[in-house]
Amino acid sequence: MSKTADSTGRRILGEVMGAAHLERRDKTRNDFNAALNDYSEEVCFGRVWAREGIDWKLRSIMNIAMLTALNRPNQLGRHVESALNNGCTMEEIREILLHTAVYCGLPAAGDAFRVAEEVLKTRGLVE
Amino acid sequence: MSKTADSTGRRILGEVMGAAHLERRDKTRNDFNAALNDYSEEVCFGRVWAREGIDWKLRSIMNIAMLTALNRPNQLGRHVESALNNGCTMEEIREILLHTAVYCGLPAAGDAFRVAEEVLKTRGLVE
Amino acid sequence: MSKTADSTGRRILGEVMGAAHLERRDKTRNDFNAALNDYSEEVCFGRVWAREGIDWKLRSIMNIAMLTALNRPNQLGRHVESALNNGCTMEEIREILLHTAVYCGLPAAGDAFRVAEEVLKTRGLVE
Amino acid sequence: MSKTADSTGRRILGEVMGAAHLERRDKTRNDFNAALNDYSEEVCFGRVWAREGIDWKLRSIMNIAMLTALNRPNQLGRHVESALNNGCTMEEIREILLHTAVYCGLPAAGDAFRVAEEVLKTRGLVE
Amino acid sequence: MSKTADSTGRRILGEVMGAAHLERRDKTRNDFNAALNDYSEEVCFGRVWAREGIDWKLRSIMNIAMLTALNRPNQLGRHVESALNNGCTMEEIREILLHTAVYCGLPAAGDAFRVAEEVLKTRGLVE
Amino acid sequence: MSKTADSTGRRILGEVMGAAHLERRDKTRNDFNAALNDYSEEVCFGRVWAREGIDWKLRSIMNIAMLTALNRPNQLGRHVESALNNGCTMEEIREILLHTAVYCGLPAAGDAFRVAEEVLKTRGLVE
Repeated sequence: MSKTADSTGRRILGEVMGAAHLERRDKTRNDFNAALNDYSEEVCFGRVWAREGIDWKLRSIMNIAMLTALNRPNQLGRHVESALNNGCTMEEIREILLHTAVYCGLPAAGDAFRVAEEVLKTRGLVE
Repeated sequence: MSKTADSTGRRILGEVMGAAHLERRDKTRNDFNAALNDYSEEVCFGRVWAREGIDWKLRSIMNIAMLTALNRPNQLGRHVESALNNGCTMEEIREILLHTAVYCGLPAAGDAFRVAEEVLKTRGLVE
Repeated sequence: MSKTADSTGRRILGEVMGAAHLERRDKTRNDFNAALNDYSEEVCFGRVWAREGIDWKLRSIMNIAMLTALNRPNQLGRHVESALNNGCTMEEIREILLHTAVYCGLPAAGDAFRVAEEVLKTRGLVE
Repeated sequence: MSKTADSTGRRILGEVMGAAHLERRDKTRNDFNAALNDYSEEVCFGRVWAREGIDWKLRSIMNIAMLTALNRPNQLGRHVESALNNGCTMEEIREILLHTAVYCGLPAAGDAFRVAEEVLKTRGLVE
Repeated sequence: MSKTADSTGRRILGEVMGAAHLERRDKTRNDFNAALNDYSEEVCFGRVWAREGIDWKLRSIMNIAMLTALNRPNQLGRHVESALNNGCTMEEIREILLHTAVYCGLPAAGDAFRVAEEVLKTRGLVE
Repeated sequence: MSKTADSTGRRILGEVMGAAHLERRDKTRNDFNAALNDYSEEVCFGRVWAREGIDWKLRSIMNIAMLTALNRPNQLGRHVESALNNGCTMEEIREILLHTAVYCGLPAAGDAFRVAEEVLKTRGLVE
């Protein structure tokens, strides 16, 4: 069963996304969303984030860049959080997102700045 | 005039993309493409790559992630080169691209692996 | 006039999307949106959905897959409804969306699961 | 400093997007979003919109088309406004958006019609 | 039958894309591609390009912007041709594509400049 | 080791994509591409295609729809092949791709028809 406490993916998911995120998932688990949640734990976190070679901070930064390009604000917000959890500063996130403006275009960067600013405010990292 | 040898953007472009790339651009410069090449030198390299806060290796890695998401193989190949120039190893590029498979999907990662493999072979970094 | 009760596209639109959807469109019809609504009735439903060769259930499933890839949650919700109307089960929609995770990436599938779960809950098909 | 009243980009931004938009930006300016706002003023408006060769009405229309393709409703709404400010009629916006239905697909056009309709209603240009 | 010489869409297609394009389509027509070619003639050209309210030059320009955003170089080349046929100058196409760099990102604009430059060279409009 | 002859994913990959495809992969396997090929076998085929609830023909059709939307012609060609292997007729592929024209836009469908037509000609399914 994929929800055993000792599974690697589940442990990494909890560390990257936070215990509250994991708890919320477990509480709302049902026959429908279980298929994707198990995929996320086992494949995304258990099979890819678990690999060596690049560290979690870099994975979080790549996610911010990709989710800006892919236009997925829901997950972007969570990975701005994961980047902060993995040691990014406000200044780094600012430079990362300004860099996306050149390659993904200004509208993509504009939406991403708004999502990130909200997370940074919640954490008291901007005014 | 934007092509003075001492402009910051032009110098950084040369360092990131290589002198051969810069020379090829200058030789094929015309009334049409000059508008974009100047924009690239002044905005992309002179205004964004020139900033502090994140280093060039990270900018190259972000570009690999974004160009995979954005489906732009021409520029992807060049930024795999820039990543290698900025200190990435083959193993890091492999882990970076495997990470994109989860977020951008397998077809995006498949195309990116092919583009990167060609660059790595040219440099003798895979068999 | 494109709104005659007997037009093929209009009839199919009503069957696929439901009578309530059609009524809402008619009530909010104005000089601006009429251009797109007529296009939708005549081209989308009257010219394409009306064709033989593949059935409506398959067309609904393709739409779920495409709208997940295209990042269009508004229409995705409606076509999860149309898929259910055309005979899909909750289990089929779950497998369809898990399949999109591999090809469109986990963030796309995550957003799609959320949209679909809401529709399924409204219909009492998940807890 | 990029916020001097006489900077070209800032002046054009104010004319294209409206004084209220500019004022809102200035009031919410902080260490984080300043990087993107300055980029927008200096690069987008000061370096590109400031050029001759095509007029502002055409730039606004292109933005409506691109933002529909790129799936960016936040900026789309603002550029429907800028198009109206630059002389577009409701009828032109309708034809522009119907044209996007063929090339970007019906879901993209459907979302764009909804965004534009809201702006047009606020201005009293559709019932 | 959709190929009668007098159909509106077919006539407009010929005028916009050129007689050679139309002839090539007819020669390679088969049971498979006929479905899309008829759709293109009847819907794209017969139903949308045929409308009043915005002129063909503007439709061509919008297509250049959208096809750059959508990453479709095959059709982009053809619509750079249609834009030239409809009265665009090299300078206008340069400004149009530079404008896309801000909104779609530099890689999208870079690919579009290359496609357009080839068309412009074939026509002797850049050196 | 992920290449044991009896692994489920590997067996399904061979059945879906053909033995020649599998052999080509094995011959070009190296330290770099092995990471993605193993991911493809284990996750895509071993974990998702292996599931019950929807059959392989439907998975192939969904892939044609998604790869058209995602603009991935390399994989599209292979999944037109997989669709034919899984029982699709030329007529079904034609209707599937015409359906994409409405939702993904005409340029996306145009590129997809060209890719599919080449596969169909190789197999002698269109003149």
